[in-house]
Amino acid sequence: MSSRREIEGIETEIGRAVEQMIPFNRVLGLKVDSLDPKAPRLRFDMRPELVGNPVRQILHGGVISATLDVVGGLAIALASFADKAEASLPRHFPNIGTIDLRVDYLRPGRGLHFVATGRVVRIGGRVAVAHTELVNDAEEQIATGSAAYIIG
Amino acid sequence: MSSRREIEGIETEIGRAVEQMIPFNRVLGLKVDSLDPKAPRLRFDMRPELVGNPVRQILHGGVISATLDVVGGLAIALASFADKAEASLPRHFPNIGTIDLRVDYLRPGRGLHFVATGRVVRIGGRVAVAHTELVNDAEEQIATGSAAYIIG
Amino acid sequence: MSSRREIEGIETEIGRAVEQMIPFNRVLGLKVDSLDPKAPRLRFDMRPELVGNPVRQILHGGVISATLDVVGGLAIALASFADKAEASLPRHFPNIGTIDLRVDYLRPGRGLHFVATGRVVRIGGRVAVAHTELVNDAEEQIATGSAAYIIG
Amino acid sequence: MSSRREIEGIETEIGRAVEQMIPFNRVLGLKVDSLDPKAPRLRFDMRPELVGNPVRQILHGGVISATLDVVGGLAIALASFADKAEASLPRHFPNIGTIDLRVDYLRPGRGLHFVATGRVVRIGGRVAVAHTELVNDAEEQIATGSAAYIIG
Repeated sequence: MSSRREIEGIETEIGRAVEQMIPFNRVLGLKVDSLDPKAPRLRFDMRPELVGNPVRQILHGGVISATLDVVGGLAIALASFADKAEASLPRHFPNIGTIDLRVDYLRPGRGLHFVATGRVVRIGGRVAVAHTELVNDAEEQIATGSAAYIIG
Repeated sequence: MSSRREIEGIETEIGRAVEQMIPFNRVLGLKVDSLDPKAPRLRFDMRPELVGNPVRQILHGGVISATLDVVGGLAIALASFADKAEASLPRHFPNIGTIDLRVDYLRPGRGLHFVATGRVVRIGGRVAVAHTELVNDAEEQIATGSAAYIIG
Repeated sequence: MSSRREIEGIETEIGRAVEQMIPFNRVLGLKVDSLDPKAPRLRFDMRPELVGNPVRQILHGGVISATLDVVGGLAIALASFADKAEASLPRHFPNIGTIDLRVDYLRPGRGLHFVATGRVVRIGGRVAVAHTELVNDAEEQIATGSAAYIIG
Repeated sequence: MSSRREIEGIETEIGRAVEQMIPFNRVLGLKVDSLDPKAPRLRFDMRPELVGNPVRQILHGGVISATLDVVGGLAIALASFADKAEASLPRHFPNIGTIDLRVDYLRPGRGLHFVATGRVVRIGGRVAVAHTELVNDAEEQIATGSAAYIIG
């Protein structure tokens, strides 16, 4: 059985990987807001370089799709790790690859900061699916996503 | 009827908007490679901050989804403008919003530079759909996309 | 203002259209389970001709995608009608066309009967988006969907 | 090495499975038009029960999504079989499950008969992706699709 300390160690490692080790995540400014395996959250602040429409001062759609992809993968990584911990299987930092992604852009990406949440809706040994959403600081739903991942 | 000069003026304006006026496009380093309305192309170089996996040194999935979104919107903007020019309608810089986007990640995003192409598969007065693809410098297909846009 | 009786009349008309006037809906055996505009539901029974895998006796994926498309359109139709009723605008049977559809197949379609639910997540004058799901009689989530519609 | 006769035997088996063994495919009236592994085709005739809009007499969107799902899976099955034949691996009727599906509805489904084509764009040991399209008898593109499949 995994000790609580071991699990926390891996979670810290995952958080650090998301925030610091992936260069483009730093460009997006992603910060871990929660590592709850049921619904992990990433947070980022609006910054001038993330703008897609300078007149309307809203997020670029690509910032939204990128963040939803990352938070979905994070949800899968945490769930995959938790599954193995429960089964007392050897654990390692899971290698997750996005197979495909859908994003629905629901409202203009206006706000001072944004929170993305991922939720696993299917997980198997090889393929997993996550639903994701992005809300702004007024709790308005900016976008939702659905993505399939391969678990390496 | 639109003179060729007028059309070129608008095309130049569109190219400048894509490359310079949209802050996050500058982060991605997008350059116009072709404004052929049938299949416009954007190009960008691999740069360290675009990496999603530092071990494998491949593009972040978000760079891919962002670029496919932009090149699909560019294809719609050019087609929408061409349609109006043909009908001698008043033209203006078209306002295109992404409704939704699907991306299929087919191969790891490895390469020195990448070219994204957009093709319009449906265009109406209000809604349009584009198919897109990203290839690397070895002409390998890295990803394909399909996206619906609202024409404002 | 629309009287309650008028609204019920239109709702009955919509229900009858879904169940009886659309030939392929009869093939699927779709029955209106709820016309709640916030979350309308369709229901259908497993029948031999809906099977996609005769060994496993599970629903054909096409039965699932078809049903999710219909229930999403139903949600949009009811919401579009409700919006106009509130604004005292002239109402008519709304003409809804699917722009695109994503379906995630989460579990094998096993069960005696199935319930599909649609929820509007974006509605404008021209374009709307619905999220949908299909559950079996054991309340297991068989599939989820996301679809964009044009409002005619 | 597989003899040509063995390969033809499996192909015949696949064709028979698609046309006869899957009940809902019979409802759709799907017939194998080509088993070319690079671009297999299914064909079906317009029939009254496939209609989605009785006024416009066009295909139900669910007929389209169902057919694109089947032809994509057929392309994966043939490619998966061909891969194993080439590698002299033991072959069996491949078990293909749809992970997710996107359909873009491009034109009303009007016509006397329709042809669906599937093309593999990614194939690995566990996950594959196909692009698909449906055209009518006037060669108009009615819909396109993109779907991910798990190979069992």
